[in-house]
Amino acid sequence: MIRHVYQHRVRYRECDPMGMVYHAHYVDYLEAARTETLRALGLPYRELEAAGIIMPVVALSLRFIQPAYYDDLLDIVTMIRELPRARLFLDYEVRRHETQELLATGQVTLCFVDRARNRPIRAPKVLLDVLQQALAPSLSTDGQPKRSCLPK
Amino acid sequence: MIRHVYQHRVRYRECDPMGMVYHAHYVDYLEAARTETLRALGLPYRELEAAGIIMPVVALSLRFIQPAYYDDLLDIVTMIRELPRARLFLDYEVRRHETQELLATGQVTLCFVDRARNRPIRAPKVLLDVLQQALAPSLSTDGQPKRSCLPK
Amino acid sequence: MIRHVYQHRVRYRECDPMGMVYHAHYVDYLEAARTETLRALGLPYRELEAAGIIMPVVALSLRFIQPAYYDDLLDIVTMIRELPRARLFLDYEVRRHETQELLATGQVTLCFVDRARNRPIRAPKVLLDVLQQALAPSLSTDGQPKRSCLPK
Amino acid sequence: MIRHVYQHRVRYRECDPMGMVYHAHYVDYLEAARTETLRALGLPYRELEAAGIIMPVVALSLRFIQPAYYDDLLDIVTMIRELPRARLFLDYEVRRHETQELLATGQVTLCFVDRARNRPIRAPKVLLDVLQQALAPSLSTDGQPKRSCLPK
Repeated sequence: MIRHVYQHRVRYRECDPMGMVYHAHYVDYLEAARTETLRALGLPYRELEAAGIIMPVVALSLRFIQPAYYDDLLDIVTMIRELPRARLFLDYEVRRHETQELLATGQVTLCFVDRARNRPIRAPKVLLDVLQQALAPSLSTDGQPKRSCLPK
Repeated sequence: MIRHVYQHRVRYRECDPMGMVYHAHYVDYLEAARTETLRALGLPYRELEAAGIIMPVVALSLRFIQPAYYDDLLDIVTMIRELPRARLFLDYEVRRHETQELLATGQVTLCFVDRARNRPIRAPKVLLDVLQQALAPSLSTDGQPKRSCLPK
Repeated sequence: MIRHVYQHRVRYRECDPMGMVYHAHYVDYLEAARTETLRALGLPYRELEAAGIIMPVVALSLRFIQPAYYDDLLDIVTMIRELPRARLFLDYEVRRHETQELLATGQVTLCFVDRARNRPIRAPKVLLDVLQQALAPSLSTDGQPKRSCLPK
Repeated sequence: MIRHVYQHRVRYRECDPMGMVYHAHYVDYLEAARTETLRALGLPYRELEAAGIIMPVVALSLRFIQPAYYDDLLDIVTMIRELPRARLFLDYEVRRHETQELLATGQVTLCFVDRARNRPIRAPKVLLDVLQQALAPSLSTDGQPKRSCLPK
């Protein structure tokens, strides 16, 4: 399993009159965590877009367990358990950094689109390569992605 | 079933470099649609809060089928199928108004919290009353909620 | 002067732990008001973009006088006082609809960019025409823009 | 002068169909930069709120010079030049980290409100103390705030 932790400090604008993070902002947290996971794997999303591939979100779900509060430092944990074919499945946990309490869980499904032809495609080889390397760490010899994307 | 349609015009700030609505904004659309559904039923959320009851989101899911584009007029359809006990379940459809194409579907689950005691409670009677009246239209004689929340 | 009123209902997600609208959202209100002003003048921004012209914001300022609260209905008043050359200047007032209290004032400056060449240009003729007609109402005979953009 | 640099990575959700950061998000960048400036000075905003003091924004202005793009790393520079009395004035620069190009400048004015009485007050002593220490570095002997808030 690929596992990456992205940290986010809760901002004032993200908190609602109940004094807690408004639920929609978790969707933004997951996006930032996803982007940083890809970067840690050595594949910035910007490069995928430059190669003509976009990855729209086709489904997402969130379950809210405990509230996050203003100025909390959050750990957003991204997990990838399998190689994508037509879709990439990501699992998430949001935890309060200090206590590691589980605040929310999430799932996001992405697909792959060839921007020029505006058609869905299979997962591009460049992505499969970095994911395969990170998912099968015994096969990777330089280990560079292991630093921030710890395989378990 | 309670069914309410809320209209939203897609704003520039909601569109991403792919030229389509960024997925997180649908969560905001659902919130606005929910608020207007309650208002149409005769129960503004502001009054619930004033009565010490808050309704946090405990779960949400979204499936994205077709993109929405800048300046599109959207129909956000809220559906309530059953009376809540500890949780209120809402179903959503997002459609392009002009063509009625289905762009996304969603589900949101709310719970009820007594703000003073910070404890979950059952659905408050004031909400059950308006929902029951709208869900069982044959029992309602004045029909006021029927105007904008058409029972089917 | 061109004057157009756009109405916005304050959403929960826009309110902060102080219980009032978080200041950044006023920038979004102004954008929506601007878009609807252009539409009321008969020139949807979408058509300008389709013609290859984009109008980036080059400056904005806001002064906050009184807070807006959850579920308030707001009047966002857009005012255009002069024909643009290289820049279009817009003035705004945000008022609580019910009481007409002045909550905020704003100014936004837009420029015009030819998207293909990525270069600043003068205000396009199609925009000058609709603005001139609305600014000099005695010259307009059909009066269509007067309905929602009352010249004073 | 107090000067603090906060870094922000541009997110996909912040970019518009022009492919650049939508202007409203700069307001959010300034808020995060302001919060981290206070934290670096040793005075988290959360502690001010806990002490019953809120600091609403009373005015803001932004000038946009060059666009920021997706995935850019930005330096948001907060500058405080003088001790506040009834108002705290902050100046900002937004620069592309890599090139140090100036992308935007901003000013934000905050006031101080006693939350219990809902009345404006003068700058609280706890804030004046940390600002004075940082503004007059020769008087500070421990130098702790100098690490991240370099006086010039």
